[in-house]
Amino acid sequence: MSQRLAEIGVDVHHRHTVGDNLGRIVSVLELALSRSDVVLICGGLGPTQDDLTRESTAAVTGRPLRSDAEAEQHLRGFFARRGLTPTPNNLKQATLIPSAIALPNRAGTAPGWWVEKENRIIVLLPGPPVELQDMWFREVLPRLQSRSGAVILSRTLKTWGVCEGMVDEFVAPFLGSANPTLGIYAKGDGIHLRITAKAANEDEALSLIHISEPTRPY
Amino acid sequence: MSQRLAEIGVDVHHRHTVGDNLGRIVSVLELALSRSDVVLICGGLGPTQDDLTRESTAAVTGRPLRSDAEAEQHLRGFFARRGLTPTPNNLKQATLIPSAIALPNRAGTAPGWWVEKENRIIVLLPGPPVELQDMWFREVLPRLQSRSGAVILSRTLKTWGVCEGMVDEFVAPFLGSANPTLGIYAKGDGIHLRITAKAANEDEALSLIHISEPTRPY
Repeated sequence: MSQRLAEIGVDVHHRHTVGDNLGRIVSVLELALSRSDVVLICGGLGPTQDDLTRESTAAVTGRPLRSDAEAEQHLRGFFARRGLTPTPNNLKQATLIPSAIALPNRAGTAPGWWVEKENRIIVLLPGPPVELQDMWFREVLPRLQSRSGAVILSRTLKTWGVCEGMVDEFVAPFLGSANPTLGIYAKGDGIHLRITAKAANEDEALSLIHISEPTRPY
Repeated sequence: MSQRLAEIGVDVHHRHTVGDNLGRIVSVLELALSRSDVVLICGGLGPTQDDLTRESTAAVTGRPLRSDAEAEQHLRGFFARRGLTPTPNNLKQATLIPSAIALPNRAGTAPGWWVEKENRIIVLLPGPPVELQDMWFREVLPRLQSRSGAVILSRTLKTWGVCEGMVDEFVAPFLGSANPTLGIYAKGDGIHLRITAKAANEDEALSLIHISEPTRPY
């Protein structure tokens, strides 16, 4: 998700993992909303008592959880096709706060949430990878892309046989550049230089990371 | 690292990833120190300008960075054995704050740090996995284990053919238990129940997660 966000021009400044504890989840959400435009939450949408993402989001937004007719119909259908009846705790997966749009979950029972609140976007995604990936690519990434209006492209130059300190001194004049930016990474196959440009479209971004001459030996 | 910490009785409440930005790293460190007894920091110990973990830790503790004779000797030896001379930015890897104990890095140039400050422990570990793992298992985990005085053991029961909501209702009476705790996890091979006990030693922990009867069918 971080890689895809980078590609559509969304800077990822923080990633936070927290356990199934209402108080800690709420305080992490409040912190995230105080500093970020978009907060993506993965997991905790299951039916059990330790699935607390819906409750935490309701608490942070100050809005009540209510059963959503369409989400409940989807959930009852999911169970009926398997010859099962949902238990009461299953039905909590069909609850939403009034300002949330339900994002369809084609691979499971719990819908995702898209919530807009005071210039912030909060998105709830299911934790199981097969459900998360489907919803991310179909429902969430396109919506975020249409808002960002930017493209970010990177080019990686790999060096070999010189140490990180030497590469750093060699490229020092470019390290302060705001766009494109330059990052230095010590990898198993040598020192990598990553040049990253942000622009309104792909052509402009490409022209920013274009390398006009062959790189010279150090 | 989270798994190993759990095994020695250290609860991991938060995991935070932040980019190479001094202001953001400092604010994340301040937050971490305000709520945790132990703060482990991985990465950002390289020689380049975007390696900011030492600077951030010095800022948070209010202590100055100074070259450490032993660390500098290790670093110069590492380069000399490869026929190289360290550049000035390489030498910043040999700096410490006065209260830091240098943790030897057998696989690279930058020592780790062990810092104790006002009942908090701050540990700096290198990012490259080969360096991180060696230092973690040799230097950090044993020190933390000697402080924790506890053992945590888990037992996982796998269920198949029942949905998460049904399992949740079945084990509801046990979900409030403080020790052992019970967690429910939807996995690819069914619903898992994890029973986790914390005790002063392994025998006591084992007795807490002992299951005396075969589990009955639902």
